[in-house]
Amino acid sequence: MVRQLSPRTAAGEKATRLAEDAATALAERAHEHDRTASFPADNLTDLVNSGLLGACVPEELGGLGVDTMHDLTVVINRLGRADAGTAIAVHMQLAREWYFAQRWKRAQGPAERDSLATSLRNMADGTAITCGATSEAGTDHDHVLAEATPVEGGYLLNGTKIFVTMSAAATDFYIRLRVATPDGYVTASAHVPRSTPGLTVVAGWDAVGMRTSGSNDVVLQDVFVPTEAVSTRGPWGVWNVSALQGRTVSNIALQGAYLGCAEAARDLAVARAGRTVRGGRSGPAGLVHTVGELEMKLGTARATLQSALMVVDEALAGPSDTVPAADALEMMVAFQCAKTVVTSTAIEIVNAAMNLIGGGSYLSTHPLSRIYRDVRAGPFMQPYAPLEALDFIGSATLGLLPKGAND
Amino acid sequence: MVRQLSPRTAAGEKATRLAEDAATALAERAHEHDRTASFPADNLTDLVNSGLLGACVPEELGGLGVDTMHDLTVVINRLGRADAGTAIAVHMQLAREWYFAQRWKRAQGPAERDSLATSLRNMADGTAITCGATSEAGTDHDHVLAEATPVEGGYLLNGTKIFVTMSAAATDFYIRLRVATPDGYVTASAHVPRSTPGLTVVAGWDAVGMRTSGSNDVVLQDVFVPTEAVSTRGPWGVWNVSALQGRTVSNIALQGAYLGCAEAARDLAVARAGRTVRGGRSGPAGLVHTVGELEMKLGTARATLQSALMVVDEALAGPSDTVPAADALEMMVAFQCAKTVVTSTAIEIVNAAMNLIGGGSYLSTHPLSRIYRDVRAGPFMQPYAPLEALDFIGSATLGLLPKGAND
Amino acid sequence: MVRQLSPRTAAGEKATRLAEDAATALAERAHEHDRTASFPADNLTDLVNSGLLGACVPEELGGLGVDTMHDLTVVINRLGRADAGTAIAVHMQLAREWYFAQRWKRAQGPAERDSLATSLRNMADGTAITCGATSEAGTDHDHVLAEATPVEGGYLLNGTKIFVTMSAAATDFYIRLRVATPDGYVTASAHVPRSTPGLTVVAGWDAVGMRTSGSNDVVLQDVFVPTEAVSTRGPWGVWNVSALQGRTVSNIALQGAYLGCAEAARDLAVARAGRTVRGGRSGPAGLVHTVGELEMKLGTARATLQSALMVVDEALAGPSDTVPAADALEMMVAFQCAKTVVTSTAIEIVNAAMNLIGGGSYLSTHPLSRIYRDVRAGPFMQPYAPLEALDFIGSATLGLLPKGAND
Amino acid sequence: MVRQLSPRTAAGEKATRLAEDAATALAERAHEHDRTASFPADNLTDLVNSGLLGACVPEELGGLGVDTMHDLTVVINRLGRADAGTAIAVHMQLAREWYFAQRWKRAQGPAERDSLATSLRNMADGTAITCGATSEAGTDHDHVLAEATPVEGGYLLNGTKIFVTMSAAATDFYIRLRVATPDGYVTASAHVPRSTPGLTVVAGWDAVGMRTSGSNDVVLQDVFVPTEAVSTRGPWGVWNVSALQGRTVSNIALQGAYLGCAEAARDLAVARAGRTVRGGRSGPAGLVHTVGELEMKLGTARATLQSALMVVDEALAGPSDTVPAADALEMMVAFQCAKTVVTSTAIEIVNAAMNLIGGGSYLSTHPLSRIYRDVRAGPFMQPYAPLEALDFIGSATLGLLPKGAND
Repeated sequence: MVRQLSPRTAAGEKATRLAEDAATALAERAHEHDRTASFPADNLTDLVNSGLLGACVPEELGGLGVDTMHDLTVVINRLGRADAGTAIAVHMQLAREWYFAQRWKRAQGPAERDSLATSLRNMADGTAITCGATSEAGTDHDHVLAEATPVEGGYLLNGTKIFVTMSAAATDFYIRLRVATPDGYVTASAHVPRSTPGLTVVAGWDAVGMRTSGSNDVVLQDVFVPTEAVSTRGPWGVWNVSALQGRTVSNIALQGAYLGCAEAARDLAVARAGRTVRGGRSGPAGLVHTVGELEMKLGTARATLQSALMVVDEALAGPSDTVPAADALEMMVAFQCAKTVVTSTAIEIVNAAMNLIGGGSYLSTHPLSRIYRDVRAGPFMQPYAPLEALDFIGSATLGLLPKGAND
Repeated sequence: MVRQLSPRTAAGEKATRLAEDAATALAERAHEHDRTASFPADNLTDLVNSGLLGACVPEELGGLGVDTMHDLTVVINRLGRADAGTAIAVHMQLAREWYFAQRWKRAQGPAERDSLATSLRNMADGTAITCGATSEAGTDHDHVLAEATPVEGGYLLNGTKIFVTMSAAATDFYIRLRVATPDGYVTASAHVPRSTPGLTVVAGWDAVGMRTSGSNDVVLQDVFVPTEAVSTRGPWGVWNVSALQGRTVSNIALQGAYLGCAEAARDLAVARAGRTVRGGRSGPAGLVHTVGELEMKLGTARATLQSALMVVDEALAGPSDTVPAADALEMMVAFQCAKTVVTSTAIEIVNAAMNLIGGGSYLSTHPLSRIYRDVRAGPFMQPYAPLEALDFIGSATLGLLPKGAND
Repeated sequence: MVRQLSPRTAAGEKATRLAEDAATALAERAHEHDRTASFPADNLTDLVNSGLLGACVPEELGGLGVDTMHDLTVVINRLGRADAGTAIAVHMQLAREWYFAQRWKRAQGPAERDSLATSLRNMADGTAITCGATSEAGTDHDHVLAEATPVEGGYLLNGTKIFVTMSAAATDFYIRLRVATPDGYVTASAHVPRSTPGLTVVAGWDAVGMRTSGSNDVVLQDVFVPTEAVSTRGPWGVWNVSALQGRTVSNIALQGAYLGCAEAARDLAVARAGRTVRGGRSGPAGLVHTVGELEMKLGTARATLQSALMVVDEALAGPSDTVPAADALEMMVAFQCAKTVVTSTAIEIVNAAMNLIGGGSYLSTHPLSRIYRDVRAGPFMQPYAPLEALDFIGSATLGLLPKGAND
Repeated sequence: MVRQLSPRTAAGEKATRLAEDAATALAERAHEHDRTASFPADNLTDLVNSGLLGACVPEELGGLGVDTMHDLTVVINRLGRADAGTAIAVHMQLAREWYFAQRWKRAQGPAERDSLATSLRNMADGTAITCGATSEAGTDHDHVLAEATPVEGGYLLNGTKIFVTMSAAATDFYIRLRVATPDGYVTASAHVPRSTPGLTVVAGWDAVGMRTSGSNDVVLQDVFVPTEAVSTRGPWGVWNVSALQGRTVSNIALQGAYLGCAEAARDLAVARAGRTVRGGRSGPAGLVHTVGELEMKLGTARATLQSALMVVDEALAGPSDTVPAADALEMMVAFQCAKTVVTSTAIEIVNAAMNLIGGGSYLSTHPLSRIYRDVRAGPFMQPYAPLEALDFIGSATLGLLPKGAND
């Protein structure tokens, strides 16, 4: 009854409709893929065929042309209601498309423009399935230990990445690394095709939830890539205001998946409660009240996410590639508020829905028992971990940021 | 650091600026008026002089022309940060202006149009100070007991109204009543100038908070009004979908005042915490974390209110006077979500701010000790009481509304 | 750091020590049994060998003589820290021992006394493994549909029971039924040995958590039992104050298992946080604060459970078999408060612990990922479901109980 | 319906009965004393006359002989239900009696014993009304700035104390100070009769709540006291494990007053809800549910406080004056858990009660509007402030205490 997030552009509307169409099959397959923790290749095929896997590729390049964070989030949201693991895997592709499309629109010369156009066309038609690899065990985003060592004509890459969502199916990896320079380490991103010798995707993703997301480890052992495959970013080990924009646009739309978990749980609970009260039984005192609470929480999560998306899309609407530092901070504060509220509220809503439905929802065959496990991934998503999110918001509010920043 | 609500129209911008200008004096006077529970006539004079008291009167009629619920809420919000009691009193005037302005724009004939224009001009220049009188002890909105008894040439009015905000200063009262007809009671609204014999404003408003709001009892004893002063609404004692629109637009902007309480408390707490951490002391572990939580809660309250205001303004933007029933339901659901979240979150924020500031905030001279009392009025505001708000949302979600409705 | 529940009798101390000793092996085996949802027969063997499976059998009959709800709960708690599924399965046996031991102490004649003594001896040495079967799909405790039909020399039993914890290993089932009489249905309990023709334990317990509890369905198809195997209780379909005592003592000690989940999660989180802060890193702002919150919540859960156990044990200490109605109500109110607080707080604590530990705890190999699934069973335990628990407490507080009761 | 805290000793029973008898008059006078922020001398007279003001004085010395923290807390609790300000003022006297009685029982020689006996007799018959003065603006418990300067035959005292509860009526002040020594500052306690020249009790206690507690400022200007009036404690400015015991026993019983606020609010709410449901109206959906929640919260607060009191009384039951460091830590952790839970839950309960009662409870004449203000004092009580309480619990849990301690 509380209004859902809806697309605000024509491109978003088309993509959302395709996502809603795809959702039926995703939902039907979710239990089996979840049971075996197998990557849902059939889902991916469907999405390639419908064109949705090119949602953020410009229309001129064969895609649907979704170009706002808001509408991208709506697409992920609709998939997330059916199968959150697939939704976050697909997000890997779509968020990269969005980023490449921005760069393509602002490309400086024909070489860059053509190269990006080729990548985007490949992503639109499913030739290229991409994913980013950032996380490592025992360190953080600003201190990655995977390293690119300069050699003749390129680099040798070594390291191990974890939680690499979509890695099960990806053809192309974009890997966060560090490179030694005379002035110290700098961070870098390397593009590595899957077939490159030395790159191993370690099958065996086996988490309590999000089991359809194909989030395997990726091991790099003396992987050679040519010089042009590596592009450097800023200094390594330093917190960086300019990274706030990038980390926001690469991740905020994932919140659509967690909102989707909450919505799916809510629908199941409302359907059950509706049968009780319309069947003439009053149910326990507090049934209508509890449905009211659940709906209010859902409304809160939706509003907070929508508000953050408006802040982000507004800031991005400016003329430049890079938003001002103040906007980058505001963007990340809004994102972290939304992330904290959406992920924690979604967990509460799933929990409340299980209470409304009863013991049946605890059985492995009941969709809520999967959603209960999927939704718990939310707080682990980067950036940031829950305590760090509140740190960031609190520090920004107290004027303590940029602190140790390099801007 | 989380983005505040900001006006979205030029008229709203002007009115907001005036409200921000007025706020300084309001804040300075708040303690003394609160101490004595005296109505702040000086505040009213300021607002008349600045033109803000005509914020929702069309520009052609001498006002500022604010015509969205969103921007009206922003104005009330800015006043509420300084003195929430004054803010809710002023809301009485502004919300009525908004309603009259809508009717004036759609008036059917010159008589109605001229009459409304006169009222609006008087409200803009402060000649008319208005308030609505609805609540009665021991009954509810759908079952008012104050009654208009038909007599020669008009009606005799009898009854007692409570919590009549702005009654201390009002020149004109709009009073909810019932009238006996051959087919049973109908509800009605009577316009009664303050000077009418038999109408008594009982001085003595003395509540724990909102002491500057002039919310006295109003007693009617055989008050004669002419026939045209009474306009009937629908049947009495029946829940009514068509009333949802009216009750939403008459009340939602009040939430700006409670949000304002939270913002004022937050500012005091952040200032204090900022002195601690910038003074080089770390303060208690959890200080930055707790500021982060507080800011996140504020962001949630703002987002939920903003989202509801967008739903309302969108529905109102349609061509007709009266929105479709589905829109009226959606509007009230969004309003009740926002009311529940804003009022409860504002209470939590004030509470957290007191913890951050310490024992000094418990003294009567500290502004937080007033805000702590003011903010508690929020859940009592109509519609609805807290349990009823969740009932409403839950019932709407379960498809149980309209239930016993007359539409 | 907050004091744990500790045994208050010598028998309780011995049993607790045995439970703590057993816990190491249970914890080691938990992952593998959880993965395959296989019943942990090895755990059961250990507990038979150590004597713990006869914890509530009187010492004279070969048991350990634990005779307070408090100390029984402590035993279940210690097992629950290691493997909550095993803990609730073992509870089936121990709670029945406690009940039989009470009856044995008050037995009216040698026949009853000898029969109970034999049962208790068998339970102490593991010859008898027992479980109760109450729940059915689509109905509730007061309206069971499984039925005993009188036939020559006994009854034929038909029906299907679900969530029959320990059924995987049980030798003896105690099954809640109804029996038609000339005056309408009465409820009854039937003792059915596993080998009885027509009784089928349907292998295949497969829930999201508590996978080691062996809570299979049990199907009865024309199961013949002799007359003396069935004992009737009160009228069917009627809420019943006298049942409050029985339902409390049969179930309250289960809360120890959920408290155990919280404690295991807390220990993992504190160990991790401790490594961070003692390693000289401060960790995120709010780390110590968050550990403080977690410990406070654990203290709250412990205190609420302990308080309820004191109320129960005090009421049971009276001279009679059956406590007065007022005590039975107070007992159940205290139990429902404890159940609500313990189960919801345990879920919160596990959730907070996952946040403190990070993404690693989301992997299937991490014990927290199992505890996250196990702990969610708590709210489903009977009596009562979450909304019904608040109903019960609220109704008792408002003096609305007994309502529809048969006392 | 949830069991209240009840006395566990005969002395406690007698004192509790006297407190319950006194409560009627206290409740009747509360509104008027609150309105004027006047100290309730009439209440004090009543309590002297009934003997309750000597509750913790040994019977041999004319008192009632209450000697457990538990039963002292019950007495404060019963007073707190009627008038929380009076309850915390009376606590000043009773907690000091308890402390003196402990010292008297263990006194080393006749001189100390006689002196304490005299003090206790005077406290029992109301000749001596005592209070402690610790807090100062802008510093904390370990860094008091009020100072005793050695002079011929004694000391000159200077400084300003705030929040000195009971100071309005006290005859004797026990004031926390520091004294310069060749080895640096040490803390000390000075006993100063009210009539001592230079000691001024600044009338004008005016806080948002607890207005009957007489918590004025006390100013010391060159107050001369003889040498024996000052007894030194440990080093100044150093956190100190041995102080944990003293701070716990001096303050934990105050929690009874906040629990009392919650109980009084609950009684008002339950009475109102009971009239609704017994009047045949169902009230809003969620009414019984919400009463259930409120009662559950009350049960949680009671259980957590009771549990802490058991920990404390058990530790104090040992043979020595001073408990071991581990016990002192455990005692304070239990106290801080209880303080955090009781004060925050009491605030929630009062809030929920206002929602259940409606707008009438917002008027100054309604007792809830006073309780709403009184209950907010809870989090400010020392030790510790809310964030510091969680710090303490978290640090103790992580093994970080004693940190900077002098033990």
